[in-house]
Amino acid sequence: MGYWAAEAEAFLRVCAILFLVLTACLVAMDTQTKFIVYTYAKKATFRDLNALPVLVYVDGAVAGYNLLQLSRCSVSAYCKREIQSPLLKNLSWVHFLLDQVAVYIVFVATTAATQASLLAVTGSKAMQWMKLCNRYTRFCVQMGGALLCGYAACIVLALTSFLSAYNLFRLYSPSKFLQLKSKQ
Amino acid sequence: MGYWAAEAEAFLRVCAILFLVLTACLVAMDTQTKFIVYTYAKKATFRDLNALPVLVYVDGAVAGYNLLQLSRCSVSAYCKREIQSPLLKNLSWVHFLLDQVAVYIVFVATTAATQASLLAVTGSKAMQWMKLCNRYTRFCVQMGGALLCGYAACIVLALTSFLSAYNLFRLYSPSKFLQLKSKQ
Repeated sequence: MGYWAAEAEAFLRVCAILFLVLTACLVAMDTQTKFIVYTYAKKATFRDLNALPVLVYVDGAVAGYNLLQLSRCSVSAYCKREIQSPLLKNLSWVHFLLDQVAVYIVFVATTAATQASLLAVTGSKAMQWMKLCNRYTRFCVQMGGALLCGYAACIVLALTSFLSAYNLFRLYSPSKFLQLKSKQ
Repeated sequence: MGYWAAEAEAFLRVCAILFLVLTACLVAMDTQTKFIVYTYAKKATFRDLNALPVLVYVDGAVAGYNLLQLSRCSVSAYCKREIQSPLLKNLSWVHFLLDQVAVYIVFVATTAATQASLLAVTGSKAMQWMKLCNRYTRFCVQMGGALLCGYAACIVLALTSFLSAYNLFRLYSPSKFLQLKSKQ
């Protein structure tokens, strides 16, 4: 594998981990208590909507996966030995598929959380669902920041998956379908 | 480009168009009228939730894009002339990026619609949002079918994007970073 490709991959994975952990922390630590009547307090937490705890778990899991991949990057950078071609191909397929799964589930979790939060901002007249963000403003602003961070993580993960697709498919011949090419 | 790759791409794009059009039609034609009091009727349509019209427009646009790509496939299959290497590379980059954008926006639109619909199924106690699917059952079943179709379209589009990544990155050298390889 090229030197630059490995460095770019490590950099992207560090960025992805930072964004994912930041998102999970911002979502999980977001609470606001509001006194509705003099003694009756109501607390808004991320557990009020099912999509938000799911986002925290998914972001944590994908950050852990990227940490594992990062340790693999640093190990292979220290060893610097040539791997046999069929083994390299199989490993590249595994990394490619895992990276694709990672980017899609983070995308799904972030989008579901965004849609649920948007409904809390706008409400829905047809469904008689009321808005809640006019009451819990600080809570909603922090959640908005967390979701922006979540989409930044999605973009970085998408770039990582492009890189792993590049590392896989450049092993194949440009003229014959699904045939490995000789060293060059 | 390999013969099998072009055939597989055309097949995947036809499947994607069918699933996308089916999803858009199922969502857009889904209505149910319910008499609440003797003379007062309430009609559930896909315009009750903002995410559903967005899904219809996005699916229509991506189906149109895939139809354009399909006509390109058939033209290039008839012409069968060799394209110069730098032009092929630039075209492959354009197809790769457009296919990635297509799969991600369909994924976002379908997931947002699914999350909004799930809230209509489960309601939310913490937010005091009521369930609506116990009243509009047939409407919700049809919407569920439409969203399953939408995810089938997402999977097919993801496979198409893998194929366009393969068609792009196999042009590059396996040992040198971001350098085209010679014909082989």
